Amino acid sequence: MKVIVIGGVAGGPSFATRLRRLNEQAEILLIERGDYISYASCALPYYLGDVITDLDSLVERTPEVFKSKNNIDVLVRHEVTAIDPATKSVTVKNLTTGEVFQEKYDKLVLSTGTRALLPPIKGIETVANGRVLRNVTDAARIKSFIATQRPKKATVIGAGPAGLELAENLHALGMTVTVVDQLTQVAFPYDPELAAIVEAHLTEKGLKLLLGKTVVEIQDAGQTLRLNDGTVLPTDLLIFATGVRPNSELAATAGLKLATNRRIIVDEKLATSAPDIYAIGDVIETKSYITGLAVPSLLASAANRQGHLLADIINGADWTYHGYIGTGIAKIFDLTVSFVGYTEHMLKAAGITNYKTILITPFDHSYFYPDAKRLNLKLIFEVETGKILGAQAVGERGVDKRIGELSTAITGRLTVFDLPNLELPYSPPYSTTRDPINTAGYVAINQLKRTALTIKVSDIPTTDFATAFFLDIREADRPTMGTVKATKNIPLSELRERLAEIPMERKVYITFRKGLNPYNAARILAGNGIEAVLIEE
Amino acid sequence: MKVIVIGGVAGGPSFATRLRRLNEQAEILLIERGDYISYASCALPYYLGDVITDLDSLVERTPEVFKSKNNIDVLVRHEVTAIDPATKSVTVKNLTTGEVFQEKYDKLVLSTGTRALLPPIKGIETVANGRVLRNVTDAARIKSFIATQRPKKATVIGAGPAGLELAENLHALGMTVTVVDQLTQVAFPYDPELAAIVEAHLTEKGLKLLLGKTVVEIQDAGQTLRLNDGTVLPTDLLIFATGVRPNSELAATAGLKLATNRRIIVDEKLATSAPDIYAIGDVIETKSYITGLAVPSLLASAANRQGHLLADIINGADWTYHGYIGTGIAKIFDLTVSFVGYTEHMLKAAGITNYKTILITPFDHSYFYPDAKRLNLKLIFEVETGKILGAQAVGERGVDKRIGELSTAITGRLTVFDLPNLELPYSPPYSTTRDPINTAGYVAINQLKRTALTIKVSDIPTTDFATAFFLDIREADRPTMGTVKATKNIPLSELRERLAEIPMERKVYITFRKGLNPYNAARILAGNGIEAVLIEE
Repeated sequence: MKVIVIGGVAGGPSFATRLRRLNEQAEILLIERGDYISYASCALPYYLGDVITDLDSLVERTPEVFKSKNNIDVLVRHEVTAIDPATKSVTVKNLTTGEVFQEKYDKLVLSTGTRALLPPIKGIETVANGRVLRNVTDAARIKSFIATQRPKKATVIGAGPAGLELAENLHALGMTVTVVDQLTQVAFPYDPELAAIVEAHLTEKGLKLLLGKTVVEIQDAGQTLRLNDGTVLPTDLLIFATGVRPNSELAATAGLKLATNRRIIVDEKLATSAPDIYAIGDVIETKSYITGLAVPSLLASAANRQGHLLADIINGADWTYHGYIGTGIAKIFDLTVSFVGYTEHMLKAAGITNYKTILITPFDHSYFYPDAKRLNLKLIFEVETGKILGAQAVGERGVDKRIGELSTAITGRLTVFDLPNLELPYSPPYSTTRDPINTAGYVAINQLKRTALTIKVSDIPTTDFATAFFLDIREADRPTMGTVKATKNIPLSELRERLAEIPMERKVYITFRKGLNPYNAARILAGNGIEAVLIEE
Repeated sequence: MKVIVIGGVAGGPSFATRLRRLNEQAEILLIERGDYISYASCALPYYLGDVITDLDSLVERTPEVFKSKNNIDVLVRHEVTAIDPATKSVTVKNLTTGEVFQEKYDKLVLSTGTRALLPPIKGIETVANGRVLRNVTDAARIKSFIATQRPKKATVIGAGPAGLELAENLHALGMTVTVVDQLTQVAFPYDPELAAIVEAHLTEKGLKLLLGKTVVEIQDAGQTLRLNDGTVLPTDLLIFATGVRPNSELAATAGLKLATNRRIIVDEKLATSAPDIYAIGDVIETKSYITGLAVPSLLASAANRQGHLLADIINGADWTYHGYIGTGIAKIFDLTVSFVGYTEHMLKAAGITNYKTILITPFDHSYFYPDAKRLNLKLIFEVETGKILGAQAVGERGVDKRIGELSTAITGRLTVFDLPNLELPYSPPYSTTRDPINTAGYVAINQLKRTALTIKVSDIPTTDFATAFFLDIREADRPTMGTVKATKNIPLSELRERLAEIPMERKVYITFRKGLNPYNAARILAGNGIEAVLIEE
């Protein structure tokens, strides 16, 4: 059996090494267009920021080691320019010599990943002071640029998690960093209420954020940016973190079926529409484990696991890929942000509407043990069934743990009704007797059983005006709103500390305010066992 | 409905407050023998060690707050001396005044917990310099003893996790701490190979461990201990952490059905054998969620959840307790030790033998990102089905997360075959592209599929003596053992760094050595994709 693998970053090497462990006889050839294989692309920002100083440490195995230790042939700086499914052969071009040759395969694995998606900005092709950080070669080049040019002002275009990791690392080098994004929030696809926490933290750390703005023209070889609001932004270093596009042109030309997002469609055996051609990693569209809907595969760790699984499948195991969940995490200064499954942004894009959400802010561990920090945990679940659709968390401690546990819960097909039963490790330095996940379950169940979270003024029972507690959550300096007279004002910012002022025995309404604040107030109250009703006006 | 709750530490208050939230009309009376209710007993060692300085912060709610905020009547320093299921009444004694009175109930909840189990050592009743740390009163008393007597030498009897937490906190105060245990390992019920790691750490931190030894006599009001090996141990402070026994005498006298371990037997509604009497927390015997066998409930967090659930059940919800998993965690100096489900010690006690184990030592996060530490992760699973029976982990980072994830996996009825599929949050500061849990799954699957892990010399195929690689893992200064000539010596301590010297293409045997070392070597190799066979002699 001769197996050719195209693409050597994450899924490809994982596949090839696993196949070798399973099968000593297979002939395995790995072809990579770039200079390096098997490296940790997620770690590149930390190399820029001097958190990781040895670039070689990011390369797990060299082509030489692949040959000597795993008996896998590797061609770097070689590009596959065509696939012929009929003759089961590929055309390979040596990018150094220009030589072109054919290779036959019995099985072909596409692990071609993605490349940077650059916005069509006037002058972008002239940028000489940075551009993108996608691979080891980019990292070495930018590092060298920083060492020799000593940029003082850096600009990152794109405030997604990847852009923010970059921004933090440039900031760590002492640069003044500006982040520009066309969206009005950072950290997309996280939802706005969590992004707002990240945004406040970034500002506090000294990053300049220009949100809801686009670069319309690049001048001076990247040193001057003109924004859509007229701002002229000078910069010494310019990096785009504006998303990716799949490297699927080769597959398209060979006639493989692509999704509308240009990703290669695979079945549960990770097989493409062409016989004996498989695909793994960021270039594929697969099925969501949660909803069964088509979703792109977007994570190096997923690529790794798909590679491992595919080796078993090609070697004859009757296993199937169970679908993609999607779990992301990023360290952003002192915060950890992490999500699993769908965010509300993603649900909206998928047209899913029958869900509810909760947001709780418990301590990550016992408040009386040192360094307890508030965790912001949002859970999204299906109405009626309580099926967990997704979760997001932001905080200084215990974020990765909770999202890991919720991802495991999703894999186990648990619902919010199961979350109170989870027996998570408790001792004061690690958790609370009721872990945040247990609390999230309790609050979600309350939310599902509640008939009305919001009420119109006209629907409030008349007797309630005499007996209920009407809470006004505006900050001291803000104007009152709405028509219902409040019993008491407790600013949202003080609510958690002043919970004792809310009578447990009375029905609680929150008087009208615009925006998310009443919702957040209700969530804080719900997290503390108080089920408040929001007044809509 | 009048509901009486006996016992006010963990499960009782959780039950009472939840019932009040569900039901404004119920009359709720909580009776506690001690001075305090609703406190964090797990935090008491940290109060001794000055990690937590405010004892009041450990008391979540006072009786006054219970009354004013939750409308729950509380009697502290009152003991229930008898239950009469026929008349549905209890006899209560005011421990301050001696007054005795009756209270009627519609529903009775026993949350009486456990008390310290003191070994029958001659002179133990004379101890005046410590004794046990079970409640807030004990903590205040020992703290005061330390402040006034300034003990220099402390002895903790019992090297279980609770004893070790105590020892660490006394050590933090500058005392010379000795820990004595009759077992030959620390941290029971953790298995020996993990306990050995903890033991080495404790010794490194300067604790003196006397294992496999018992105290046979206590003299000088606790200041002199005579051990079974003749050692005379002087000590200024003496604390017993020698386990607990259930406070079930009251239940026994009332005719409630007890298990042989003296715990109260409850059904899936948390009901005892007597009508309208329920029990929760450490005093009950319940069913294992994992095996269905009877197990004691041993955790404050489980008590808390049982209390919450029982309130729903008594209020009419048709819910059931899904069984006890058992998840423990302790911080021991720089290490975190945590387990979920069964350890091998527990499996042996339960008579379960059809299981396999793996022990892996991966990095908790990417080795190239700062502060990566080795995690020691043991997984125990059923032969054939791969059902997860338990897990244990020891390390400096990421221990709580992995055990929390595995506990969630157990709740979701996942098997080791599912573990490679878990999508756990990956970014270099938090994990590796293949998380330790994924790796544990891969290794466990390999283990299940392996026909023989060990082989007798006589069963080794003759041809293998010419072609296989026989690895000798003794340290440089140790004698050779066994009859099979080794191909190469790589000391176990260097094995991980010298893996490249083991030829992937040859069958690997590990030559005979006594004890756990060959097993550990095989686990290291398995974690790196090398399936070695142990030679038995």
